[in-house]
Amino acid sequence: DPSDQQLLSLLANIYAGSLEKHAPKIPKGTRDFSPEQMAIREVAFNIITNVFKRHGAVTIDTPVFELKETLTGKYGEDSKLIYDLADQGGELLALRYDLTVPFARYLAMNTDVHKLKRYHISRVYRRDTPNMSKGRYREFFQCDFDIAGEYDPMIPDAEVLMVMTEILDELPLGNAYEIKLNHRKLLDAMMEVSGVPAHKFRTICSSIDKLDKEDWATVRREMVDQKGISEEAANKLGQYVGDENKARLRSLGPLEMLAWLKGQNVFGGNAKAAQAFADLTILFEFLTAYGILKKFSFDLSLARGLDYYTGIIYEAVLTSGTTSVGSICGGGRYDDLVGMFDRTGRKIPAVGVSIGIERIFNILDKVLRESGMIRKTETLIMAMCHKDAPTAAPLELCAELWANNIRAEHGHTVVATNKDYKRMVDLVRDNAIP
Amino acid sequence: DPSDQQLLSLLANIYAGSLEKHAPKIPKGTRDFSPEQMAIREVAFNIITNVFKRHGAVTIDTPVFELKETLTGKYGEDSKLIYDLADQGGELLALRYDLTVPFARYLAMNTDVHKLKRYHISRVYRRDTPNMSKGRYREFFQCDFDIAGEYDPMIPDAEVLMVMTEILDELPLGNAYEIKLNHRKLLDAMMEVSGVPAHKFRTICSSIDKLDKEDWATVRREMVDQKGISEEAANKLGQYVGDENKARLRSLGPLEMLAWLKGQNVFGGNAKAAQAFADLTILFEFLTAYGILKKFSFDLSLARGLDYYTGIIYEAVLTSGTTSVGSICGGGRYDDLVGMFDRTGRKIPAVGVSIGIERIFNILDKVLRESGMIRKTETLIMAMCHKDAPTAAPLELCAELWANNIRAEHGHTVVATNKDYKRMVDLVRDNAIP
Repeated sequence: DPSDQQLLSLLANIYAGSLEKHAPKIPKGTRDFSPEQMAIREVAFNIITNVFKRHGAVTIDTPVFELKETLTGKYGEDSKLIYDLADQGGELLALRYDLTVPFARYLAMNTDVHKLKRYHISRVYRRDTPNMSKGRYREFFQCDFDIAGEYDPMIPDAEVLMVMTEILDELPLGNAYEIKLNHRKLLDAMMEVSGVPAHKFRTICSSIDKLDKEDWATVRREMVDQKGISEEAANKLGQYVGDENKARLRSLGPLEMLAWLKGQNVFGGNAKAAQAFADLTILFEFLTAYGILKKFSFDLSLARGLDYYTGIIYEAVLTSGTTSVGSICGGGRYDDLVGMFDRTGRKIPAVGVSIGIERIFNILDKVLRESGMIRKTETLIMAMCHKDAPTAAPLELCAELWANNIRAEHGHTVVATNKDYKRMVDLVRDNAIP
Repeated sequence: DPSDQQLLSLLANIYAGSLEKHAPKIPKGTRDFSPEQMAIREVAFNIITNVFKRHGAVTIDTPVFELKETLTGKYGEDSKLIYDLADQGGELLALRYDLTVPFARYLAMNTDVHKLKRYHISRVYRRDTPNMSKGRYREFFQCDFDIAGEYDPMIPDAEVLMVMTEILDELPLGNAYEIKLNHRKLLDAMMEVSGVPAHKFRTICSSIDKLDKEDWATVRREMVDQKGISEEAANKLGQYVGDENKARLRSLGPLEMLAWLKGQNVFGGNAKAAQAFADLTILFEFLTAYGILKKFSFDLSLARGLDYYTGIIYEAVLTSGTTSVGSICGGGRYDDLVGMFDRTGRKIPAVGVSIGIERIFNILDKVLRESGMIRKTETLIMAMCHKDAPTAAPLELCAELWANNIRAEHGHTVVATNKDYKRMVDLVRDNAIP
């Protein structure tokens, strides 16, 4: 009978659907951490936290979501990547996109806090196209270190960069990284001098930022053909970030690059450029005192996209031979962000760095597995129960061990046969219990 | 001119609106953690983690959100409290409601894992009415410990309860807690024997669960008048959970209560009751071996609401004198939850406990502040710069200290006057730097 057939096929579909429904899956772009991966994560966090604490930083925590309006207008073109929560009645919420904006919101809310050197290790969320092999997830950790408050010029900036290099050196990355440094005001000056209209600064910045992957000719074409700046403006920009800049970078350290830019007077009398040069002159003195200036390259083509930067900006990329395998950390100075949240317009200048940990996990995972250094548990003693003894006997033993704060486990099953015993011994060995 | 007036008033509104917009706020029911509060949190987590590790547990982590379908059908009436993410194209997601369902999903996905004793300390999300003074937040921490896999009966259950009492005893709660224990199958048996229709089990359970706050007469009225069970059924339930049960609880320990229930044969030959009694007989033997049975009260009126429990259930409440000040932890056995995610129907029995930490924070905060034991940073040395010395001098000193892994800070400002010096000394004292 056809209607029976239809009914059967309908039921079969529902059944298949319900199986489908129960197939266990994890959201796209996210990951679980197994016990082994947690052990690796702890190694990385310990290295990083130790540096933060060595510099006297305290830590804070903020909620995983913020009011939607807190995040609005802070991330430029990347705002489309923000995860919104559903409107279930009540406030409009969104998952945090970074730890910097919540930090600024925290400072603006805590009006008794005028200075804060804090670190914050937590997860952030971006609806980006995931690429797990490159360590690009939709939920990922950031390890942030920021110094907020009024200080003598460039003192906090230099310390943030010191923290960054200490971490890069203490992680087992084999020194295979390079750090680019630039100044937001130099980017603005470059645009002004080249005659780029003010409303196109942001979009031209994001073209310039592609110069680490694409050549000048390609980026230049994008600026003229797609973003509509004049040939003349593009040529002028080329004086700063074109192929000659690449060649200069290979031969000039930060001090020489700064001297060359000042000497050539390529920015004319532009006021923003003058401010940036003054900042960088002091900064390079301090980085010399710290002994880390040689780790930096002063690169006019570094143009990090976030809206809130106002001073120096920097980014470290991991390198394999001469090729970059992706950004590992970055940051900058953001003097106006706290003020954006403050009703009274109170400003707190701040500078910070954000370390992405996902690529580091992959590297540490490889290093630690090869060295056989991963241990998931810290159990010292395994109590077993023989079939002729009362079941509760190992429980009493364990209770005594635990009471003396000794890490112990019992077998959770009665040892009745040699096979049982062998299984227990395997368990002990698998968990590296001494 | 009236239209100018209108325009001005419109502009004034927009301006006021934009001020309103930037007033810094945190989402309802959430909190920031200040550096002092983070130090307290660490104390609590360290106590709890130490117990977990002492029992040989490993840790895992899962994403803050899950596929919506993963959470569906697991939480009964509480499902309305789940936070959904907005549908921005792609998967439908929701913030995790607890750590138990993600753990079950993890086990179902990792088909090579058959046994796992794991802890997980992380945040969960519930759109409940917040009550900060009682420690009820919309974003809060749970510290979960679970044992999954096939073991001899009640061995893992007893260890979970041991872990729970160790933590309650090691936290500075002054032993002001009580633990109630019951068995899901006894609740079911009670309903069956009393003639409550099967489709009303859940809603009657949630009435019974109110008996810690309301008297039997009130709860009985709710069952009959609002939930529509017969007077007869309500009277029969009264034999188990009515006023006489309260009186019995005051005089009978778990073993006596179990003996009394068996002796009175109040469950007749009900098969589920017989199973529960068998479980509890073994469990009480093990809890005696662990020396913790006396900490429990075997209370038929404990009826935790979550759908997934299949065996023993338990809950600890903090007490102040003779009054309860709210639940601090709870859990139970859930043998079918992993199977709900597994296509092949593979089941992994499991039992666990979840410790809520927000109330504990409040208590620890009071205890530690009174004892003056909180220290936010671990800085040992403060380097200062006198106005006659080069600014970079303390930087060089700090660089050397940091290179030797010594926790140090510099003043971030030049000391030019006595006032500056005094400010620095205050800073050193405020941060308890030796």
